[in-house]
Amino acid sequence: MTVELISVGTELLLGNIVNTNANYLSVQCAKLGFSMYHQITVGDNEGRLAEAIKTAMNRADIIILTGGLGPTSDDITKETLAKVLGRELIMDEHSKKRILSYFERIYPDVNRNLPEGLAKITENNWKQALKIKDSIVIDNENGTAPGYIVEDKSKIFILLPGPPSEMIPMFENGMIPYLRKYQDKVFVSKMVKICGIGESKAETMIMDLINAQNNPTIAPYAKTGEVHFRVTAGADNYKDAEALIEPVINELKSRFGINIYTTSEDVTLEQAVIELLRRHKLTLSTAESCTGGLLSGRIVNVSGASDVFMEGFITYSNNAKIKYLNVDADILDKYGAVSEETARQMAKGCAKVSGCDVSVAVTGIAGPTGGSIEKPVGLVYIACHIKGKTVVSKRNFRGNREKIREQSVVAALDLVRRCVLETYEIS
Amino acid sequence: MTVELISVGTELLLGNIVNTNANYLSVQCAKLGFSMYHQITVGDNEGRLAEAIKTAMNRADIIILTGGLGPTSDDITKETLAKVLGRELIMDEHSKKRILSYFERIYPDVNRNLPEGLAKITENNWKQALKIKDSIVIDNENGTAPGYIVEDKSKIFILLPGPPSEMIPMFENGMIPYLRKYQDKVFVSKMVKICGIGESKAETMIMDLINAQNNPTIAPYAKTGEVHFRVTAGADNYKDAEALIEPVINELKSRFGINIYTTSEDVTLEQAVIELLRRHKLTLSTAESCTGGLLSGRIVNVSGASDVFMEGFITYSNNAKIKYLNVDADILDKYGAVSEETARQMAKGCAKVSGCDVSVAVTGIAGPTGGSIEKPVGLVYIACHIKGKTVVSKRNFRGNREKIREQSVVAALDLVRRCVLETYEIS
Repeated sequence: MTVELISVGTELLLGNIVNTNANYLSVQCAKLGFSMYHQITVGDNEGRLAEAIKTAMNRADIIILTGGLGPTSDDITKETLAKVLGRELIMDEHSKKRILSYFERIYPDVNRNLPEGLAKITENNWKQALKIKDSIVIDNENGTAPGYIVEDKSKIFILLPGPPSEMIPMFENGMIPYLRKYQDKVFVSKMVKICGIGESKAETMIMDLINAQNNPTIAPYAKTGEVHFRVTAGADNYKDAEALIEPVINELKSRFGINIYTTSEDVTLEQAVIELLRRHKLTLSTAESCTGGLLSGRIVNVSGASDVFMEGFITYSNNAKIKYLNVDADILDKYGAVSEETARQMAKGCAKVSGCDVSVAVTGIAGPTGGSIEKPVGLVYIACHIKGKTVVSKRNFRGNREKIREQSVVAALDLVRRCVLETYEIS
Repeated sequence: MTVELISVGTELLLGNIVNTNANYLSVQCAKLGFSMYHQITVGDNEGRLAEAIKTAMNRADIIILTGGLGPTSDDITKETLAKVLGRELIMDEHSKKRILSYFERIYPDVNRNLPEGLAKITENNWKQALKIKDSIVIDNENGTAPGYIVEDKSKIFILLPGPPSEMIPMFENGMIPYLRKYQDKVFVSKMVKICGIGESKAETMIMDLINAQNNPTIAPYAKTGEVHFRVTAGADNYKDAEALIEPVINELKSRFGINIYTTSEDVTLEQAVIELLRRHKLTLSTAESCTGGLLSGRIVNVSGASDVFMEGFITYSNNAKIKYLNVDADILDKYGAVSEETARQMAKGCAKVSGCDVSVAVTGIAGPTGGSIEKPVGLVYIACHIKGKTVVSKRNFRGNREKIREQSVVAALDLVRRCVLETYEIS
């Protein structure tokens, strides 16, 4: 099956928002085994939208439209599709009830004991309860505009609201179960997530597999400081698809070894690190200079991080490094704040003061200023103190201030992961 | 002038990367006063790309193509456009020299004293030095693939490399100066950035201006916890355009008052806060619980933040709040870690321990677990201590863990801003 994506919204053409929906839906369609050859963005303009729908009908089996389902007069996706297909719009009582109860939940005083409150659900909201005759209504659990599946001769139209917080859960819960029946095969995919090897090196290491790929396919996904490979296999049933994937995953595991931190799509690096620390009942503290809190901020991304992560110091000034982490003023004088020695003392000091089992420290030059020939922008020292031992990693990152700091965070998480693995799991 | 954007790359259709280029170029074209009605994404496929080019030529004056200029056999944008236009590709010696010197800069040992090194610049790299005959070559300062401007009868083609780090500087430095001559007017825009008012309330406050807009136009841009309005005016010259903008900016200033933190496009909230603190020679420290370092991480986004920002504490555990910030254990027992009292003590303690002029503290429930009826997920207390006074702001944020934490960071920066303004500038 081929899919064409039409993103509707003048705000996209003006650049008011980034079209992350297109990215999300591309990934989902690839995972379903559908081929996508065209993505179109048009504004809230009936003529151009109708034209885009007609063009898409000539070259795709499934047409996904996002946006333009809301209450305002600019929202014309449903209306335009109805015209193109020559089908009428009718009131859907079920949607009408849901819209009312949505407003009552969000604004408890709406339409209740407030004569003037009656005006609060403005008339245009009921436009959202109109559906194309004989279409399937998909409830919106996170907003007022429902989604729709419209079957028309051999074509399928999937209509989704624009806000990602409404679109994503609706696609996952309402559309994927429907679309599965159009898969000619069952697809299973696994994600191999790698840290500590650059993208081009990682690709080179499995170039023979990538070149020979057919089923399963291996697709690289770029992420700052990480490399992800999605391995996808299609077969007549899940068991066969999984059987196709397994040897490829095992091969990747044997090639990348400790560099793989997970093979689960949903597990992030910070989750893998927290999980590893939890497994060994270890507590963690952080001492950050150039990352300035981004490392701990990322650790706290993980709900339940509080079992493991106790505290962190942002010692941006030299004085703070001395005061809180007991870094030696002489060391700072002699080697500078960005040095192996300072990183080492930061991690050791942090462990001592916090009483945590593992401490990680980051100090570096994020730029754009502050670099020199000996210590260029991008030079970062990361230290991990664990069980009386301190490991320091020296890195030279490229990119702007933001990129250097992001890469430092990933490298710090990865160093903790490696140190725990080496101390507790690899002998 | 109308512009059509064609993004080329199978990696976009598979969802391997988000198309942020489309967003960037949409904004730039809007600022140039060009109209964009269609954006297309196609894969690295000659037939479909040629079709997209022909379609675009039928409906736009300027066609911007991104991606597909690299060295691999998948990169076919230039080759396909040459075929569509019936023009030949010729070697550009200038580009060839630049590519060589780029490799020499990045890999100093390439092709030098290393017989086998000769193979390091692989043959396919010279493909990047081919240009469409009589086109204008735009140097790439951040990579090997140059960009091009191709004039063909009444149409203009702008070819840009795909990586944003190469594309953006090239568009700014190489393409905008060229495109300016196709502006029928001169456009000037200013950005009014607002914090502390929700998007729908902010729009309502100026709905009369938005409805009446024509020249200047007012366009809202969404950003977590902030509202931005871009005001753009077109005129025959800069002076006239600026004269058109000025009264609108003044009107927005009078309506939004202290809620506006800048009217400069390039200034972020954290920059505005750092600048304000620097102006009053004030130092800052942070104490974070639920944001776990994101607040300080964002402050350190600003190069040169070290003049102002000294240190931060991530007191994720209760014990850390007591140990470092001298929060009273009884207060934690009686009111809980997420309470006005705890936030107040965190900010006061942080100021005392750090010796900074201003301290800001955040404690809240980011979820998804940990909420209760009295203290629901999204409840966040933010406290700012300044000149012996502590102000506490209670907020109820909506959204997932990430959104709640991001909104908390923005609210904390905004509270610092307001407290400094009220203490030092508004009497």
